[in-house]
This record gives sequence, structure tokens and C-alpha cells, in this order.
Amino acid sequence: MTGTIQFNYENVLSEKVGKEGIELEELKNLQKRFVQVKKNLLRKKEYLAFTHLPDNLTQAREIKKFVKKIRDTHRFDNFVVIGIGGSALGNRALQDSLNHPYWNFLSKEERKGWLRLFVLDNIDPQEFSGLVRIIDLKKTIFNVISKSGETTECLANFALFKDLLKKKVRNKWREQVIITTDEKKGYLRKIANEEKIFSYAVPENLGGRYSVLSPVGLVSAAFAGIDIEKLLLGAKEMVKICSTDELMDNPAGLYAAIQYLLYQRGKNISVMLAYSNRFYSIADWYRQLWAESLGKEVTTSTGKYSIGPTPIKALGVTDQHSQLQLYLDGPKDKVVTFLSVRDSGEEIFLPQFNQNNLSGKSLNKIFHTEEEATRRALTEKQCPNCVVLLPEINPYMIGQLFYFFELATAYAGEFFQVNPFDQPAVELIKKYTKNLLENES
Amino acid sequence: MTGTIQFNYENVLSEKVGKEGIELEELKNLQKRFVQVKKNLLRKKEYLAFTHLPDNLTQAREIKKFVKKIRDTHRFDNFVVIGIGGSALGNRALQDSLNHPYWNFLSKEERKGWLRLFVLDNIDPQEFSGLVRIIDLKKTIFNVISKSGETTECLANFALFKDLLKKKVRNKWREQVIITTDEKKGYLRKIANEEKIFSYAVPENLGGRYSVLSPVGLVSAAFAGIDIEKLLLGAKEMVKICSTDELMDNPAGLYAAIQYLLYQRGKNISVMLAYSNRFYSIADWYRQLWAESLGKEVTTSTGKYSIGPTPIKALGVTDQHSQLQLYLDGPKDKVVTFLSVRDSGEEIFLPQFNQNNLSGKSLNKIFHTEEEATRRALTEKQCPNCVVLLPEINPYMIGQLFYFFELATAYAGEFFQVNPFDQPAVELIKKYTKNLLENES
Repeated sequence: MTGTIQFNYENVLSEKVGKEGIELEELKNLQKRFVQVKKNLLRKKEYLAFTHLPDNLTQAREIKKFVKKIRDTHRFDNFVVIGIGGSALGNRALQDSLNHPYWNFLSKEERKGWLRLFVLDNIDPQEFSGLVRIIDLKKTIFNVISKSGETTECLANFALFKDLLKKKVRNKWREQVIITTDEKKGYLRKIANEEKIFSYAVPENLGGRYSVLSPVGLVSAAFAGIDIEKLLLGAKEMVKICSTDELMDNPAGLYAAIQYLLYQRGKNISVMLAYSNRFYSIADWYRQLWAESLGKEVTTSTGKYSIGPTPIKALGVTDQHSQLQLYLDGPKDKVVTFLSVRDSGEEIFLPQFNQNNLSGKSLNKIFHTEEEATRRALTEKQCPNCVVLLPEINPYMIGQLFYFFELATAYAGEFFQVNPFDQPAVELIKKYTKNLLENES
Repeated sequence: MTGTIQFNYENVLSEKVGKEGIELEELKNLQKRFVQVKKNLLRKKEYLAFTHLPDNLTQAREIKKFVKKIRDTHRFDNFVVIGIGGSALGNRALQDSLNHPYWNFLSKEERKGWLRLFVLDNIDPQEFSGLVRIIDLKKTIFNVISKSGETTECLANFALFKDLLKKKVRNKWREQVIITTDEKKGYLRKIANEEKIFSYAVPENLGGRYSVLSPVGLVSAAFAGIDIEKLLLGAKEMVKICSTDELMDNPAGLYAAIQYLLYQRGKNISVMLAYSNRFYSIADWYRQLWAESLGKEVTTSTGKYSIGPTPIKALGVTDQHSQLQLYLDGPKDKVVTFLSVRDSGEEIFLPQFNQNNLSGKSLNKIFHTEEEATRRALTEKQCPNCVVLLPEINPYMIGQLFYFFELATAYAGEFFQVNPFDQPAVELIKKYTKNLLENES
């Protein structure tokens, strides 16, 4: 396993995008602040469980072993994740970035016996009944994931599936359920204990949106045949790369600092422009990470103020025909991050036909040429943009990528002076939901 | 067919959201301006092809007849749309809103012989080869869609599939291709003529993002068994509803006026929050419509300025666990549109279990309660929000919805004083792509 992610930020600098950009000096001047950022973060011990996940290779190996044993029974064909938010987005990001784009349509042989993966992360009734209709319940494992063990949507879907399973396989339903939740607390833990259901513990103080490298994300990935050990090794590499206190050498630090500086300049929208279909779900995962971590109300001695860049996901080249008009000609309120891969690992050559531009070219070539063209156009139009570049897409690189963004988000929280690990406002919705449900029952 | 979409905007008013909202008087004061907006629009005859589409019931009936004939041969199982932007987003929006959520997993019988639908709207090499792997080429119809007949991505994918088809079925490949393009001009029209390939004409002066109710969107929908006649009838109903010059009675006018007023107040982000998985692709379709139409650079006698709200798609209840923290506590830079349905047409009751809140409740009930709770929380946090409410989801209502947003976008263009029908900046990317491809060949 070699190669590392590269972060290229030259197009956020004013020498490239004029007054919409930042000066290199401004970045360098954040060096002292960055040392403080790192120190502050280290003090938040109660939230730093995510920094220890890459070290847990033993657990990854155990999960792999456990999963292989089940696969070798040939009993199962489907794996359904029942979760929402941080208990679903990482699972999907792993699957979409590392497996065949039409994985669930492949035959069992083509999947080498690994399971199809479905993620049920809503309580839309039609989505639920739709899924029930197309999977054979007897051949399905359900992974019920909720850190607190109390998440409404997760419990509702679980209750429904448990009921259906019991009708199908009676007492054996327990063999088809895996619970991933807090080690001690909550309803799901209680059920796991009472019913003796196989379970994984979510480490204490691990926020949902930082949990993809814990059993929350790893178990479903392993059931879909993804090498989760390499994933952790990649993350470990990123821990190492970002251990330096030198801001200019620390890619996660630079990413956070640049986003912070540009937000101060009125760029309240942060676009994650995925140049590969495989990255699109990662952009969605990032959307939660960035929004929930940084979208905060801050109370100071002089009053309250609100803060938080809004993350957007977009897909290249597709969105060149949908969003780029706005990004190019619209207001200067955006910073764009290209999520790119150097080698897509697939060469498909166009035949000769009477389109001189295209004849004989490879799809890969055209794809990357359009990406480069988009980058140039954005730069010419003074839209600051940067690139997170993977040499190729594999578990080792995706592991790096997840950790890179997690750490960048934690740093950004410190730069913005908000707590990147809580989500107080969501409680308001829960309160209203509770009131409404109780008053009408 | 009865029932109409309702537009509820009380939560954008200052009486509900304080200083972040608008006064009812401000809206009413736009009455005179609105009459002018409608007049200006009427003068843009060369762009108004989309307003005539709902009348074309004859063509819809012809398409239905043609499609039924092909279905009854039982020769085909898959329908692949090869298009991008406006030649893909509407197709997907129709399919996802009106068919089974796991349609492509259903058996042919369950689909009543209608075809599975795939939309290839990128040139990511792995996406292409992935699709090739899972479809039986002999059983697949390809609909190549490009208004200009010259779109790079579309031509590239078509060239590749044509090559593969020829190897499989030799001269018969023509029977498996439908071309949808300009009536007279462009490469695709030339190919259709030379090779005698069945084709549909895209009406003159119809912009891609306004084309879902033309053959661009209708053909693939008909092959997937969607009643496209009802779709047009719904749109026709919306034409009627919005024919009034009275702003306060014209829902599309109100939608445009409200978005316009709130943008002036610094709400540069317009969130389409879909409360049903079935609406999520419509939010994506809207994203193109809104962004490409309004994201513009305006040149005046005193200089240039940029304009354009940034549309975002989000999904309820899922994104309550991802984006709502930011929407609630973050900066007051957003207006939220709920896309809602009163009756999801599906009642699934939870079993009794020791979660008092949930026991015995229907999924539908919990879903809508959370939606209401989110609306209250947003309102309490002074985030202006409105609701586009469908009594139920069916082709008649979705037809109304498409036309509602198209017209609202055209009105908004006039309010913002930009041309909502062009997309000049996208040419810049095309220019760079062309240069790069030519210089390296």
C-alpha cells in the first residue's frame, strides 16, 4: 500500500483568483493559531474517540473473521442497514466508493458470495414497503445501528422488520439481527442483552458523524467484501501525515484554515464537487460532517451570533450541465473542492466516428479533460477552488480520505470557535415530535 | 382527476419569523410589478415553447400507442436514457416520483411488462462499464437525447453503446435506438436521417431544463408504464390556475415573488426539502432549473454584477439527522421549501413494543409528525419556510408540480431581471474542453 492523498490549493490564492482569493501570507499567519487549534482539540478528550479508531486493527480483523464465517454458510444474500444520519451515510459512502456501481444487480457469483447492501435511512412508508417487496427476508441480515439506542426512525424500522421476521422464521429471527449501539446504555442495548442478540459496541464519546471507521461503518462494508483492514491502515497513514504542528505541511489543517478564511470573506457555501460517481456518496457523508459540526449558534458576552458554511454536493461532469452556470456567473459566495482521482483504473476507447474531438479518445481522457476545463473556467471566473486528489480509489485511499475530512472538520470547529462534536438544535425537532406524538395519542 | 397543489407561505411572513421574514404588504405591493413580469415573459416568444407542451395531448397519446406496441413484442426488458442535464434529470424525476422505489429490482411480471429504466448521465468510465455488465444488450432500448444533437457526453456514450450493439445484433442495432433531438439540425438528427433511426423532435426553442413534458421526458416515462397523458392534463390544470394576473391568487407567481424578496434580504440559499423519498429526484431536477435559470452575470451601464440563489436539495426525515442542525442554528441565509404530500397512500402500523411514543402508530403518522416538528422548529428559529403540498402523488399531480416550478422559475427570472432561458457561462467550459482535447490530440 503506497501513495497518499494530495491537497492542492493554488487556485484559492489571490494570485490565481484575484480579490476573491486569499494571500499565502494570511495562511502562513495562521501558524500560531493552528498550534493553539491543535492544543484545544487535544483538551477535548471526551470527543476524541474518533482519533483512536484507526488503531483498532484487531477489531477489524475480528469483524472480517466473523463476517467470513457467516458468508461461508451461504445462507444469506442481503444485508440491510437500519440507521439514519451518521449510522447510514458512512455505510453508503463506503459501498458506493469501493464496490461495483451496480453491486446489488450482480449475481451472487459475481459478488463472490458477499452480500447485497441496502441502507434504510428513512421512515417513508413507501420506501419501507418497497424494500420488503424485493428482498427475501429469510436470506437477509439486519444491522440495527444507533449510538444512543433510542433513535426514533431506527427503532420504528427495526420494530417493523422484527415483526415480519418473526412471522417468517419464528425464534430464529435473532440469528439475523446484529445490533450496533452503546456498550451499556439505551433501548437497543437492553434488547441485545435480553434477547441475546449479537452486537457491536460503539465506543464511548464517538459522535455519529465521526463513526464510519468504527463498527458502525465497518461491519456492513465487510459483509460487502470491502477490505476494512486496509481502510484503517489508510486512516492510520493520515493520522501520521497530519501529526505535524506545521500548518503548511498539514493537509487537514490547510483545508480547515482555507475554508475558514474564505468563509470570513463571505463564501458561505462550500461545494464538494465529486469528479467520479464513486465519490458522490462521500460528498453526501461530508455534507453531514461539515453541516452538523460547524452550523452553530454561539453565545458571547455581547450576544448571540450564528455561524456555519453550507456544504453542497455536486457531481462532475454531470453537474456541468446543471450547477456550473450558477457557480461561474452567479454571486461570489462559493468555494469549490474538487474530489478527484488520477487513475480511474478503466480505459474505454471511443470508436472512430465523425466527431473529430472525440474519435479514438478514451472516456477517462474526456472525463478528466472536462474536469480540468471546469477548473480553469472556475479560476478564470474568480471562484476559489481546491483539489483533494487520490492517486487511485481503493480502501487504503478511502480510509485516508475519511480521516482527512474528519480531522479537517475538527480543526475547522476550533478555527470557527464552535464545538464540532455536538448538535444541540436537533433536540428542538425531537422535542416537538415528542409533544406532537404524545398529545395526539 | 381532481385536487390541486397547494402553496402555503404563512411561515415566510414576519408575523411568524420576525425580522427574517417579509411583510404581507411587500408581497401585495409586487402586484403591479407582477403584471409587468407576465407581460415581459409573453414577449419572449422564442423561449416559450414549454408553455405549449401541456396542450400536446395528441402526441402523448401517440407515444403511448407506440410504446405499448413495443412492449407487446415482449422483446425488451431495459430502457437506457443516454443524456445529461435537462435530458436526464426530468426522466429520473418522473421515474422516482411515480414508480416503485425499487422498480429495477422487480420482476417483469411485477412490472407488468414495462421496462426497467436506467439513466446514464455521466461519462465516468466505471459507471459505463458497470451498466454494460448488468444489462442484456439484446433486450435493451437506448434513447439518445440531446436537444442540440452535439452534446459531448451524450455522443460519447452513444458511440460506445452503438459499437457494442453492432457486435451483438449487427444491422438490427437501429431497431434498438430512439433518437430525441432537434427536428432539423445537429449531428444526432443527421444520424437519425442517414441510418433511418426512429426519432422524436424536440420542439424548437425549448430549453433542456424546461423539456420534461416534451418527448425528452415523456418517452422514457411511457416505457416505464407511467400515464403521460395524465401528466399533461395535470400541467394543463396548472396553466389554468396560473393564468391569473392577480399575484395573490397565482401560486407560481407567489413562489417566485417570495424567493425574490427573500434573496434581497440575504437569503442566498434556497433549500428544497423533500418530505418523501419519491420527491428527492424532483428536488434534483429543480436544482438545475433554478440554478441555470437564475445564476447569471448582469451587465448594466454602471458595470457588472452577479446574481442567483443557490438551490440545495435535502430529504426529510433523513436530513433531520444531517442538515437541520445547520438550518436551525446556522446563519440566516436560507429559505426552505417543503415538498410534501398529504396522503402517502400507504398505512403501515408499528407493533406494540415498549416505546410508548411509537407503539401502534403508523409510519405515515410518525413521518408527518416529524415533518410538522421540523417546520415548527424552523419557524421558531426564524428560518422562513413554505410548503408545496400535493394531496397525493400521481401523474396528474406531478404534472402540476413540474409546470408550477417551471413557470415560477420563468417568473423569477423576470423579477431578478435576468434571462431565465440561457446559460452563457457553460460555453466557457466547452471552450476549454475543446481546446484541451484538440491540443493534445
